[in-house]
Amino acid sequence: MSIYSKELSIEEIEVGMEARYSQSITDADIKAFAGISGDRNPVHLDEQYAASSRYKRRIAHGLLSASFFSALFGTKLPGEGSVYVSQSLQFKRAVYIGDTVEAIVIVKSVDLERRRVFFQTLCRVKNRVVIDGEAELYLPESRNHES
Amino acid sequence: MSIYSKELSIEEIEVGMEARYSQSITDADIKAFAGISGDRNPVHLDEQYAASSRYKRRIAHGLLSASFFSALFGTKLPGEGSVYVSQSLQFKRAVYIGDTVEAIVIVKSVDLERRRVFFQTLCRVKNRVVIDGEAELYLPESRNHES
Repeated sequence: MSIYSKELSIEEIEVGMEARYSQSITDADIKAFAGISGDRNPVHLDEQYAASSRYKRRIAHGLLSASFFSALFGTKLPGEGSVYVSQSLQFKRAVYIGDTVEAIVIVKSVDLERRRVFFQTLCRVKNRVVIDGEAELYLPESRNHES
Repeated sequence: MSIYSKELSIEEIEVGMEARYSQSITDADIKAFAGISGDRNPVHLDEQYAASSRYKRRIAHGLLSASFFSALFGTKLPGEGSVYVSQSLQFKRAVYIGDTVEAIVIVKSVDLERRRVFFQTLCRVKNRVVIDGEAELYLPESRNHES
């Protein structure tokens, strides 16, 4: 048993299972993401620029909200030891500073033979979808310490 | 003319144009990404855990390398004012601390009528593809200050 998360074996994972995470997006998150990614697009960082843009206010990087999927997969469902195979992302609406993003991953299908779990992945703000997509995770037989 | 980047109009964007960005992945990058995303999977953070995992060493979050695509789109090609519509990502190989990731975005097609630019997106480490995918960007007619 890991101290990090309750792990489910692939046989315990069922269609419809889900995990959720919510976070309010702050200036600090956006500045930090700009620093890590190098994406210093002024629509994320510059109030004056953003005010005269189509968004009117500063918006978060799309991949900042998408990173919450990574957190859910790596720490909740399937949990540690799972391997991120693929992720698709449709950016539907802008996320603004102050918005609370709810990320949700839902099991759509399980391939026991290939040890794959397929997820629907979405982020919502006030119940409106801002990011939609799908993901594939691989669960190695030995997910924990090999010793 | 923006001080942030030389912008191309959609009519100036041609199939085969590309932009690149390289960065070495450090412990600081991974710690920062873990903090922003909440993805504290020990394979990213815990040397002892990683040593006994299939990877043998700590690996970077996949979306950390993918975030360099966001930087290229937002600041280089198409540049500021472009709108991220979608991104697909296949995580092919792990990226380790110390690896230098080269992110490349290449124009695959342009839809002038819908003002969309479609890209192949890839990250390489030592000339081996670690992430492959595609992206769609929308270029509003008014990308700059509306005033």
